[in-house]
Amino acid sequence: MSTTAWLTQPAALPADHYAGAARARQMQLTKPPGSLGRLEEAAIHLATLQGSERPSLERIAITVYAGDHGVAEEGVSAFPQAVTVEMIKNFSRGGAAISVLSRSLGAHLEVVDAGAVRDVGPLPGVVPHRAGSGTANFCRGAAMSHEQFSVALDAGRQAVKRAVERGAQLYIGGEMGIANTTAASALACAYLVRQPAELTGPGTGLDAEGMRHKATVIGRALELHHDHLNDPEEVLRRLGGFEIAALAGAYIAAAQARLPVLVDGFITSSAALAALRINPTIASWLMLSHASAEPGHRLVVEALGLRPLLDLGMRLGEASGAAVTVPLLRLACDLHNGMATFAEAGVSEGSAA
Amino acid sequence: MSTTAWLTQPAALPADHYAGAARARQMQLTKPPGSLGRLEEAAIHLATLQGSERPSLERIAITVYAGDHGVAEEGVSAFPQAVTVEMIKNFSRGGAAISVLSRSLGAHLEVVDAGAVRDVGPLPGVVPHRAGSGTANFCRGAAMSHEQFSVALDAGRQAVKRAVERGAQLYIGGEMGIANTTAASALACAYLVRQPAELTGPGTGLDAEGMRHKATVIGRALELHHDHLNDPEEVLRRLGGFEIAALAGAYIAAAQARLPVLVDGFITSSAALAALRINPTIASWLMLSHASAEPGHRLVVEALGLRPLLDLGMRLGEASGAAVTVPLLRLACDLHNGMATFAEAGVSEGSAA
Repeated sequence: MSTTAWLTQPAALPADHYAGAARARQMQLTKPPGSLGRLEEAAIHLATLQGSERPSLERIAITVYAGDHGVAEEGVSAFPQAVTVEMIKNFSRGGAAISVLSRSLGAHLEVVDAGAVRDVGPLPGVVPHRAGSGTANFCRGAAMSHEQFSVALDAGRQAVKRAVERGAQLYIGGEMGIANTTAASALACAYLVRQPAELTGPGTGLDAEGMRHKATVIGRALELHHDHLNDPEEVLRRLGGFEIAALAGAYIAAAQARLPVLVDGFITSSAALAALRINPTIASWLMLSHASAEPGHRLVVEALGLRPLLDLGMRLGEASGAAVTVPLLRLACDLHNGMATFAEAGVSEGSAA
Repeated sequence: MSTTAWLTQPAALPADHYAGAARARQMQLTKPPGSLGRLEEAAIHLATLQGSERPSLERIAITVYAGDHGVAEEGVSAFPQAVTVEMIKNFSRGGAAISVLSRSLGAHLEVVDAGAVRDVGPLPGVVPHRAGSGTANFCRGAAMSHEQFSVALDAGRQAVKRAVERGAQLYIGGEMGIANTTAASALACAYLVRQPAELTGPGTGLDAEGMRHKATVIGRALELHHDHLNDPEEVLRRLGGFEIAALAGAYIAAAQARLPVLVDGFITSSAALAALRINPTIASWLMLSHASAEPGHRLVVEALGLRPLLDLGMRLGEASGAAVTVPLLRLACDLHNGMATFAEAGVSEGSAA
């Protein structure tokens, strides 16, 4: 039996009871029904997933998975490959965007080295779970061996296990890896059966010519792996990356553990799409934070059947868009839990209520 | 000399120096330039308005102005007029949405009774500054006398004075008043020279027939006051409300005091439009929090020349949309102030940087 058999174990369906109770409570709070818009939906959704009358987001677990990509040698990124390792150090020292955001939110941040091109050695806050020293160039072969793929998926599963042990109420995954929008676009093309041009964007800052080259590279990879793109696991192994496979593994493991997931941006959405194709039972457990500025995100989001809460033109990754969404979800919970009802406050209800 | 002469005293222009310094700093932080999207813009904007290298939003002042409207007798709201006073009590007891949000944000909330139909007497957290017991029905005459108008404007000016004395770094105004979307739509029609149907929405929950009736009522008012709609102060006095005039006064006073303003939703945007038409020098000091679900908001926002940060389908008022935006602005400041630069972190810059 394959070491990846855990991937397809079904996730539970959230209990209907709590959805109904949360919806009824929202109707009784001192406001016109529906006037808090998406915040009402978010509170109801979290109450449902957490199986609670009073949803709560005190304990947030954030894992940023870092990995390098063989396809970087095709010149598909505006930044040199050395940046992946440099950023792992920056995460560890607390200078990166997600370091700042995690501190501000009081969230627990963990960085998992899923396979940067170089082993940085022990660093505070960095967990080594290396599937290799960067993936192979998927224009020449599969990005990962079967063994590497299994290790990368397990990196996510183990991170979620640690998050559950710490009592996390929401799981956020993020990523860092030079050239990983190329891998994410290739995955999205394969799963959605789309042309590279439809799903290729500037990433960290390519110009129009750079994007055309990137789309050509992706097209070559799709051609090479063409005969293996009907199997969702094979798509991920051949075209993904260590950090993307880890994210997919984390999303599946979180859903299996009944831990709600907040998906970040373009790359994490591609990982969520892989996870969903591998294990469709996880769908209910995924929420989407923001609409990335990366143009391909829209099509991936549609395929996930999710709606972003924010649209701030962000395109950084590192879980930054999800982190920025956390305070909104917390306020949605505070409103749900803390507002007075019409009866408690002695406020008259409306004719349309 | 009129007692409203203070309205047209010019506001200062924010200093260019800080805009340039903040923009330069954003380019040096360890992220692809522009990848934090609107959060970068917000940090630069706040640094500029606060005249600081390191913008900060620790101290937030929120004033919710309550007032009643004579036009309520035309049957333009889904809720009875008694709700205005009931909600003042709910604000005071801490059960309303803005009460919960203010607590969560650690913001200072003050409720100003600018003229509910009934004087509720002394209540904790409620400042009486009553211009009357509800406005007159603007279908029959001016909503406010000259004296009432002056008192209502001053309610906002005094609230801002208190906020400045408490060291506020951002000013948020909100409103509560049954039938006040009718007044706000009438104001927007007058300032933007639009038909009522273009700017009339469901408010707290009217159906299609209710909205048609509301638009007819607004049309009658515009006809009655037609000869006086070229003077922006007269438009506000005739078609506004006590709480809307107080908001306009507050926005002008805040800009004159160099205190940045975060505008909430539809009604506050109409008040901001009034303020801007009365005193165009305040423009730089206004930021917009969210896009209201009230359909007329879009046209008012365009006229203000502002872009909302959030679009969550909210339509509650009470400053709730602005309050929900505060954590995003705080995170924008944290990122601006707390991230490492490329040089500090030893991270390589991109070819496009």
